Amino acid sequence: MSLPAVFGRYRTELESELRGIFEGRSSLLYAMLKYHLGWLDENGKEIAGFSGKGLRPTLCILACEALGGRPCVAAPVAAALELVHNFSLIHDDIQDNDSERRHRPTVWSVFGKPQAINAGTAMHILANMAIRRLEKYGVPIEKQERIRRLLDEASLSLIEGQYLDISYEKRFDITMSEYLDMIEKKTAALISCAVECGALLADVDEEAVCVMREIGNDLGLAFQVRDDILGIWGDEKATGKPGSDIYHRKKSLPIVNILVEGSFEQKTTLENIYRDDKMGDKEVDIILKILESIGAQDHAQEMVDRFSNRAMDLLYRVPLETGGRQDFREISAFLAQRNF
Amino acid sequence: MSLPAVFGRYRTELESELRGIFEGRSSLLYAMLKYHLGWLDENGKEIAGFSGKGLRPTLCILACEALGGRPCVAAPVAAALELVHNFSLIHDDIQDNDSERRHRPTVWSVFGKPQAINAGTAMHILANMAIRRLEKYGVPIEKQERIRRLLDEASLSLIEGQYLDISYEKRFDITMSEYLDMIEKKTAALISCAVECGALLADVDEEAVCVMREIGNDLGLAFQVRDDILGIWGDEKATGKPGSDIYHRKKSLPIVNILVEGSFEQKTTLENIYRDDKMGDKEVDIILKILESIGAQDHAQEMVDRFSNRAMDLLYRVPLETGGRQDFREISAFLAQRNF
Repeated sequence: MSLPAVFGRYRTELESELRGIFEGRSSLLYAMLKYHLGWLDENGKEIAGFSGKGLRPTLCILACEALGGRPCVAAPVAAALELVHNFSLIHDDIQDNDSERRHRPTVWSVFGKPQAINAGTAMHILANMAIRRLEKYGVPIEKQERIRRLLDEASLSLIEGQYLDISYEKRFDITMSEYLDMIEKKTAALISCAVECGALLADVDEEAVCVMREIGNDLGLAFQVRDDILGIWGDEKATGKPGSDIYHRKKSLPIVNILVEGSFEQKTTLENIYRDDKMGDKEVDIILKILESIGAQDHAQEMVDRFSNRAMDLLYRVPLETGGRQDFREISAFLAQRNF
Repeated sequence: MSLPAVFGRYRTELESELRGIFEGRSSLLYAMLKYHLGWLDENGKEIAGFSGKGLRPTLCILACEALGGRPCVAAPVAAALELVHNFSLIHDDIQDNDSERRHRPTVWSVFGKPQAINAGTAMHILANMAIRRLEKYGVPIEKQERIRRLLDEASLSLIEGQYLDISYEKRFDITMSEYLDMIEKKTAALISCAVECGALLADVDEEAVCVMREIGNDLGLAFQVRDDILGIWGDEKATGKPGSDIYHRKKSLPIVNILVEGSFEQKTTLENIYRDDKMGDKEVDIILKILESIGAQDHAQEMVDRFSNRAMDLLYRVPLETGGRQDFREISAFLAQRNF
């Protein structure tokens, strides 16, 4: 399944908006941020440019355009969303001790953890500042303020979700509702914010804004659960073997499925392996077999499809232009089936 | 030298504003923030409360009141400033690996570094959100937006300063102007922002706002250089010996003084000791002797006095009420002479 064309549609606009945000910022601090965004290499030399799918900015601009707004008006918010997302990735890589992201060394593994903390924080502040760029499109200050509030709340949700995610590392009694609460905060809140802000900038009525927010939330949940599936069964071509998230002792959905639905023996086996220092191919295989025996992959995919379908159903409750609705359907289908 | 009375004057107002910001935030994430603020102990039990001098909030509210504004109007910004300052302390302690702050274990040493990163970031987002509380005092949205912009710029300066501070760790060719640039960003920017925002909320003319910003900048510089003095020669009662910052290989002003004014031999001795793994009483003593031989403490204090006096001179260029001017003079004198 390839990336729907809509992901490319706003790319030039987004990149130019992102570059505009860095204008006049000359401290070497920003070289770390540009490194993370794929604009500079480790030595500060310019390279190809922006990597990543750009899910959040695409959804934001698409929502605006599909509801009759001018796509360019949403570009500053789209850029802010992308920066918030990337700030969270920089800090997340520190927290998880991950040394690679998008096939490149992570910011902390190039510049050290103390400076990477600064890089993430600076990225977050620049995101806040980017909202101000709505001015040039004549967006009233009250609407700017509402968007800022949504972005603040979404950022705070994201941190609450990160907090839960880390706190779950020590627990073996996570319920399905706790898992859903965590991913809704960690992932869905910002994606939902993207769609809601796009709708707000198209000047539709409050009910449509509300439905768009729901659509974003469902897409976000579908995205994260599919991510959890890929974390165990995806990426086989890259690593040669499945189970990456198991290797890192993640409590992703399939693992929570064992905690909730597994037999006492299966739960004990999982807990013993996760608590033990040793984690190798043999241990990963044991857990993969448990997952297979309870049908965890199918269960997870059913959940993905449910969220994705719910989003698609909601699309008929908002006054989207026909082409725009089709774009949302394609994104929804992509998020549910993607292998990358 | 004891804390001037003005530091106590707005304490109740500030604390109530700070507590208001946390209302309705029930995630356990916030327990870490409340721990840092001294409201909760390590187990989440309520304790005495807010610690720290509250320099930034005090300056903000005082500036507003001394220029004829209502002090309560400045309370939301004062609270935001205190939260920005505290977010930077939480991250700073992670970056410096410091296990104690205000005679208590730091957030990361209680909750771990990954969660402490979340705590700092959440504190920063709450600071942004606090600006919105100006609404209840009828502060026009345009002025709120201007204050937000000042706070964003000051936060970004602070991170640029942190970046420089960390990047200086590996360098032995720091000039005096590089040092001043670093502390202006790391420390003075937020203190300057505090005074400027207070003035803005008092509705004085642009020239007065500008002078107040300068006053804040000078007070911030005086504060930091005095801090650098205390980092080496202060706190003897607490630790029983001087040289704490030397022990931690800091490039504070007296050390930069050696790099700039010291003989080739003195610079080499300093560099060899700082680069070596071993740092004990003997090494600290060697550096203390070099500092003494170049009169580093007197030089640093001269600089403190220069900044403090410059601030005091500027006080006559703004329409401050007599009592307020006296309060600023007391703060300025305190910052220049304090031993804590």
